[in-house]
Amino acid sequence: MISIYNEILDEIKPSDERRSEVLEFSDEIKDIITTYAKGVGVDIKCYLVGSVAKKTSLKNKADIDIFMAFNTSYSDDELKDYGLDFGRHCINTLGGTSEIRYASHPYITGFINGFEIDFVPCYDIEDASNIKSAVDRTIHHTKYIKSHITDTEADEVLLLKKFMRSVNTYGANFKVSGFSGYLCELLIAHYHSFDAVIDAAANMWSYGFEIDLEDYGTCCNFKDPFIVIDPVDKNRNVAAALTLQKYNEFIMAARNYQSNPCREFFTDRNVNTTAGEISEIFTNRATKCYILSVDVPDLPDDVIYPQIDKTTKSFKRVSEMYDFNVIKSGYYMKDNTVFMIFEYEVDELSNIKIHNGPKLSDKINCENFKNKYPDAYIRGDKLINLSERKYTTVVDMINSIVKKENISILKLGKNIKKEILKDYKLFNVFEFIDSAEDEDLRNLYLYLNENYNIER
Amino acid sequence: MISIYNEILDEIKPSDERRSEVLEFSDEIKDIITTYAKGVGVDIKCYLVGSVAKKTSLKNKADIDIFMAFNTSYSDDELKDYGLDFGRHCINTLGGTSEIRYASHPYITGFINGFEIDFVPCYDIEDASNIKSAVDRTIHHTKYIKSHITDTEADEVLLLKKFMRSVNTYGANFKVSGFSGYLCELLIAHYHSFDAVIDAAANMWSYGFEIDLEDYGTCCNFKDPFIVIDPVDKNRNVAAALTLQKYNEFIMAARNYQSNPCREFFTDRNVNTTAGEISEIFTNRATKCYILSVDVPDLPDDVIYPQIDKTTKSFKRVSEMYDFNVIKSGYYMKDNTVFMIFEYEVDELSNIKIHNGPKLSDKINCENFKNKYPDAYIRGDKLINLSERKYTTVVDMINSIVKKENISILKLGKNIKKEILKDYKLFNVFEFIDSAEDEDLRNLYLYLNENYNIER
Repeated sequence: MISIYNEILDEIKPSDERRSEVLEFSDEIKDIITTYAKGVGVDIKCYLVGSVAKKTSLKNKADIDIFMAFNTSYSDDELKDYGLDFGRHCINTLGGTSEIRYASHPYITGFINGFEIDFVPCYDIEDASNIKSAVDRTIHHTKYIKSHITDTEADEVLLLKKFMRSVNTYGANFKVSGFSGYLCELLIAHYHSFDAVIDAAANMWSYGFEIDLEDYGTCCNFKDPFIVIDPVDKNRNVAAALTLQKYNEFIMAARNYQSNPCREFFTDRNVNTTAGEISEIFTNRATKCYILSVDVPDLPDDVIYPQIDKTTKSFKRVSEMYDFNVIKSGYYMKDNTVFMIFEYEVDELSNIKIHNGPKLSDKINCENFKNKYPDAYIRGDKLINLSERKYTTVVDMINSIVKKENISILKLGKNIKKEILKDYKLFNVFEFIDSAEDEDLRNLYLYLNENYNIER
Repeated sequence: MISIYNEILDEIKPSDERRSEVLEFSDEIKDIITTYAKGVGVDIKCYLVGSVAKKTSLKNKADIDIFMAFNTSYSDDELKDYGLDFGRHCINTLGGTSEIRYASHPYITGFINGFEIDFVPCYDIEDASNIKSAVDRTIHHTKYIKSHITDTEADEVLLLKKFMRSVNTYGANFKVSGFSGYLCELLIAHYHSFDAVIDAAANMWSYGFEIDLEDYGTCCNFKDPFIVIDPVDKNRNVAAALTLQKYNEFIMAARNYQSNPCREFFTDRNVNTTAGEISEIFTNRATKCYILSVDVPDLPDDVIYPQIDKTTKSFKRVSEMYDFNVIKSGYYMKDNTVFMIFEYEVDELSNIKIHNGPKLSDKINCENFKNKYPDAYIRGDKLINLSERKYTTVVDMINSIVKKENISILKLGKNIKKEILKDYKLFNVFEFIDSAEDEDLRNLYLYLNENYNIER
């Protein structure tokens, strides 16, 4: 066993030379900023934070995060302005290029000597439970991990992160809704090794499993699938962004890995498929599958993905409201277009449906119902009417509900709503496959093979 | 208002002459039997019972019921034998012909001078709550009604019975499962007039409505849709055989009559329809309608109808178990064949369906499920598999479930089960209409127009 982990670490762990280089460069950056800040009369502390500082960064993912901690006497605006100014000064001094990015505040990113460096202003707050914004917590996280995991454990974090990436459960962003890097680090701080995390996940974890490293006793305040109390803030669940789906996918991946502990679990799987293969699968399922494509604006994943998720769920809900049962649905993004997949049991229904009316004992409402539906008849203790369906085909339904006058029945993200009103395309899956690119086929393959990423 | 009731009574009430004739003839019968019984050393009392005795028989429905009440010292077998002997003697004496019929015991029916006379032996039991069989109760019912309704009220009973017949809610047999004659009489004993019954039904009756003429306080022992405590037996609900459906149909008919109190509510409605009309309705509904016909043995309605009802419900339940939703179902009998009608939302489904597996926390069952269904995947907190359906078309399903090896999935009456295993026919409704007789078309019309009988 150990031999495969050593082999994997050889591939994924940055070399000692590279690490020294990064640390030296970070020190240089911190000096430049601190000196410059002092020169303009501002007293700050500079920290290297993130995975690089914690020795938990995977090779080629070693971006440098420099946090500038200000006294709380500075206003938000001052923080933002100084932050941008100090970062810009440093980047210019070192001859790099820069770009403004946005988290809770705007911040500047520099590209210098092949490094990508984020310069993030934050407040210097002793107790992490009193922070003003999420970035103020980062320094505390870095300190905690540095003081609670050994170098050997940092390597175990690397194995865990690599495994998580390969089985597609890594990342607290909305695209994945999985495990954050900090969460991986805490898991190793708690279980001490990759194997112990796998073993716990495979055999002990279930809905609501609790980890409370500092014994705060605050787990009961959370109702999430997985509860890992932040050691630096007892009122925060580090696993809050982890969905039940991704939590369970990791558990299943861990079980699969325990049955077959092979190297392939540490490499991404490639999809090789053909239009013929995909087409054959849909033919055998004999479902009625439709693909709805909408262009989406160029916004961050964390803005767009929750909207896509909401939109897909809403189409499913409204379809089933109109008695079109969805056997499976999914979506994927390609460039700036989202492709939503809806697989129906049937795509054409009878013209009539059962419409339940009032109980016979409710005489007034019976009269109203009968006035509206003269053919309503008694079934047991109530009136029912065989009313005309609003939509008898899936195509009619979708084309109608996305019209301006009807769209409010759907609960859509605002950006997607705007786009769908402008334009959309609705394809039968076979029609879609005929003109699909390889990337579309790969995505359809993954849609059809849910276990592909978590199995080897 | 009164004028229409008088007109109706003129049509439905037997004439005074006819009544005298019947009573005189009954007295003659009673004398012949009592004398003959005394001759063979048996002491019995003879009663004219039923609607004729109570003055509540409709014209041309005046069959004579002669009950022979024995002392409880006689055995069941003696009762049966003496009953048949006394009846036969009387019929022979009067020169009639005879036929043996079966209720709880066999009894003899005579056809004499155009009258049909039932000779029924029973026990003479003072307290009707101690009776040995249902027939022992009849004498008490007759006595109660004779002493509790006036001649005017007897006419109101006639109106109520006629109305009930015309709206198809009359008869406690299993074919109708409606209101018995005795129940109609008790309603008049309680409400005193036809109009008062209609008014109560239209405006006061609802599920579990209670009538307790003798204030026994025993209503709470019953859970039926309508509770009318038998004045001669406080532990019996006279309305026990009335289904919720028929109860509510009468309530609705009463409301309809109150909105439009016309003579037509006292005449049976005829159905006039054509194959074209029926066909057009089914086309507009765009349901997938199938008709399953099975020959049934020549058994009493009360044996066959509950079996048909059970069979139809069972086909509906099993269809829905296989995801074929039934919008409406029904049946009718023609000669000795039952025609069951099943109207489906769709008659063809996708090859796959959602098959819910164990929760992920149940590791052992997850492993078993995955061994059985390797493609099972995680959705939320459980595994699901897209399994192949057993049946993808209604026709395949029906033809398969009626096979010997599968039929146990259906809960059928035993006579129908036997017949269906021998032979059945399954038609698409349009195919059926093409070869339908007028009687079939009328039945389909009634199936499609549930309110036809209760509206005018």
